[in-house]
Amino acid sequence: MQLLDKQALRSLLPDEDRLRFDDIPPHYLTDALDRVHGQADALAFPLTTEEVSALLRYAHDHDIPVTPRGAGTNLVGSTIPTKGGIVLDLSRMDRVLELDRDTMTITVEPGMLLQDLQAYVEERGLFYPPDPGEKAASIGGNISTNAGGMRAVKYGVTRDYVRGLTAVLADGTVLELGGKQIKDASGLSLKQLLIGSEGTLAVITRCTLALLPKPETSLSVLVPYPDLDTGIRSVLAVLQAGANPTAVEFLERSVVELGEAYSGSKYPRPDAGSYLLLTFDGRALEVQESLNRVNELVLSQGALEVITLQDAAQAAEIWRVRGALVKAAEAVSEQEPMDIVVPISKTAEFIRFIHALEAKSGVRMIGFGHAGDGNVHLCVMRDGRDQETWDKLLHETAEQAYEEAYRLGGVASGEHGIGLSKRSYFLRQTQPEVLTAMNQIKNALDPKHILNDQKSYVKGETNHADTV
Amino acid sequence: MQLLDKQALRSLLPDEDRLRFDDIPPHYLTDALDRVHGQADALAFPLTTEEVSALLRYAHDHDIPVTPRGAGTNLVGSTIPTKGGIVLDLSRMDRVLELDRDTMTITVEPGMLLQDLQAYVEERGLFYPPDPGEKAASIGGNISTNAGGMRAVKYGVTRDYVRGLTAVLADGTVLELGGKQIKDASGLSLKQLLIGSEGTLAVITRCTLALLPKPETSLSVLVPYPDLDTGIRSVLAVLQAGANPTAVEFLERSVVELGEAYSGSKYPRPDAGSYLLLTFDGRALEVQESLNRVNELVLSQGALEVITLQDAAQAAEIWRVRGALVKAAEAVSEQEPMDIVVPISKTAEFIRFIHALEAKSGVRMIGFGHAGDGNVHLCVMRDGRDQETWDKLLHETAEQAYEEAYRLGGVASGEHGIGLSKRSYFLRQTQPEVLTAMNQIKNALDPKHILNDQKSYVKGETNHADTV
Repeated sequence: MQLLDKQALRSLLPDEDRLRFDDIPPHYLTDALDRVHGQADALAFPLTTEEVSALLRYAHDHDIPVTPRGAGTNLVGSTIPTKGGIVLDLSRMDRVLELDRDTMTITVEPGMLLQDLQAYVEERGLFYPPDPGEKAASIGGNISTNAGGMRAVKYGVTRDYVRGLTAVLADGTVLELGGKQIKDASGLSLKQLLIGSEGTLAVITRCTLALLPKPETSLSVLVPYPDLDTGIRSVLAVLQAGANPTAVEFLERSVVELGEAYSGSKYPRPDAGSYLLLTFDGRALEVQESLNRVNELVLSQGALEVITLQDAAQAAEIWRVRGALVKAAEAVSEQEPMDIVVPISKTAEFIRFIHALEAKSGVRMIGFGHAGDGNVHLCVMRDGRDQETWDKLLHETAEQAYEEAYRLGGVASGEHGIGLSKRSYFLRQTQPEVLTAMNQIKNALDPKHILNDQKSYVKGETNHADTV
Repeated sequence: MQLLDKQALRSLLPDEDRLRFDDIPPHYLTDALDRVHGQADALAFPLTTEEVSALLRYAHDHDIPVTPRGAGTNLVGSTIPTKGGIVLDLSRMDRVLELDRDTMTITVEPGMLLQDLQAYVEERGLFYPPDPGEKAASIGGNISTNAGGMRAVKYGVTRDYVRGLTAVLADGTVLELGGKQIKDASGLSLKQLLIGSEGTLAVITRCTLALLPKPETSLSVLVPYPDLDTGIRSVLAVLQAGANPTAVEFLERSVVELGEAYSGSKYPRPDAGSYLLLTFDGRALEVQESLNRVNELVLSQGALEVITLQDAAQAAEIWRVRGALVKAAEAVSEQEPMDIVVPISKTAEFIRFIHALEAKSGVRMIGFGHAGDGNVHLCVMRDGRDQETWDKLLHETAEQAYEEAYRLGGVASGEHGIGLSKRSYFLRQTQPEVLTAMNQIKNALDPKHILNDQKSYVKGETNHADTV
């Protein structure tokens, strides 16, 4: 890394408040967990693709690391500037550029927040299906981690809604990828490669996203089961019943109690051992028919009852408790989040393994998750341990959880990404040849390792001689 | 390229009938159009991933070009061995390896034909949604071109159903990518990169595909319109009505007449100027409700009537004529197929442009297509012209058609791929920086340009000195 020439950089972003060299606020040096802090020589707020391109060209020419970030809600350290250099904050690029009803697409800048996008399109009778838990995340961040969320069972993940991208490579080259068309069999899909690449290959500066008509109605039901196993066993049957649920969330009673304590709300049937929380959406007829099917099915599978959440306020409350589970865990103790994903047929086995691991290690692992797609969220709880004990225990339990996930045919992350904090587990569990191929692509598109280096799959290798 | 050592190659595939050096049948040297022929030094029929790996390692070590192929149904020259070397035929790897009802996946070898896969899963109450016109194509070929088809409007394309791949890189390295899990945010998606890469980066040897429950019912309607414009204008309204159609095909009357002459069947309402052919599937209630909506809508948009194809035999006949249009065109004259895709809002404008181009050039361009996703198929008709005139005219009209497609925000191919025959147009219309990035990836993963060289986006560049 060469010394950063402040004057040269200032000439690229002349506005005083869009480029800082001193007193960079600490939250720009970390992620949403705010535990590991990096360092930065500059913090830049570009407003256009051209400015991003100019900044990257400068960084590339002078071997300066760049760490891109959106709203900074990531949980795996992706936005921590571990090597100094420039933090590239895209949060001010947050405009809607075009809503095109004919092609059912919206084109936005990457800094737009998911919650703002959802509100914008829903006010207009349209619908952006991906629904990750963190609504204050930026769309660029959602694309960079291929964010999933609750509605993936029916609607798929962020990848499925990205039609076009403008992206800037490490050397400042601007690529226009995809567009508004639906099908594409024209050359390599660089667009698909960039989705989920965690800022290691390019900086996204514009996104065209597919929309759907807003579902005419939506209805949730809460299904209490007497115990854990009966609840888990019921999930596969629900998925195969042709009822096309929008969300299938699995909750153990102990986890719900944590959420109740945090939020002050109460779930019905405190005698339950576990719950399924289901949503159906679409036309009224469809939703009713799905409900009828599932009703009979779950009762035959041992459910205690089926509580239809007709009252919108009650439904919102039940979902609010579910949505606040990570915060509820954090209120009790520092926690390390994991978002392992396994084949849906292995969810039950994985959850049983986690319970056994808890019993063996003494470390609490609060689990809940997207049962409909095998994405199990775990909060590994520190519970007042001193730093040294905690570091050791966390590492040991994480190692075992990831190993089991891969043994079951799963992967380390369903939606959070790998970043910095899951890196060692990911590198260990992934086939070496696959890692090599990923790194060959990194080296081809970013030979100097300018962009988000040493995150996720990126090894220390570089074609560049004088890397720090 | 070094001389091919027959004995060394024979040691990798000892069965006499799985390796040929002489009298290679001519259809192995061409594509489905059978016009351009390449040459090959060997034709190999591997049966396992290990054999594919060994053959590629040999080819890589000795700088021998390899052209992979499945069923050979491609229309753009992807399977033509332009540089000699080995033709790698995967058609004997055609087994079902596992049907997993719990994860709703099927794992098959790449040589399995689409029609066999569809029959296999439908007999078991399951459904593989991608439905490209060519049912005798192999699944490996479908993945390599990200094949689309009729049902893409509702269900998406091949890409959306590929959960896992085993793939062999040019040097013989075997990669296991994805699996049975649904979500994945763990490192670069090499799987997504390989889908649609036309055999230029790897040879697929195993595929895990997502399935759905078989729709309970399916119903088609034929909607005649007085003229071309009224029909086209109606498409966007149908798509936005929330009726969730499975297929939306647009047919001009003149094209239908060609199909009628070929098949001996008749469409109703010969006084129509154009037709929409729609399918709805799902639960009976949904389908009926969709039909009611669309019925009112299209009549208000100027449709002559709505003909519900309740009779299964009649519906099959109507679809058979639609499915045979390319063959109907070919029966009249040699034709060059194109499968341009534009944003759906531009379909009408593109079709009008094609009519003007026909009038101007005197070249017939039989157009029909997937109106629901903007994928317009054109048969450019030779009509008895001598070779020289035809070559010139075809090139001129194609150039104009592709230029207009890109001007409208479209791309060269929606599902056929680029291959050899669309290459010059694709290279000219694509942003040079995008082509460069694609070729950087090619050079990183296949530095000797062993695999399907000089097809699609692949430029002549290579890191290897003594390439032929």
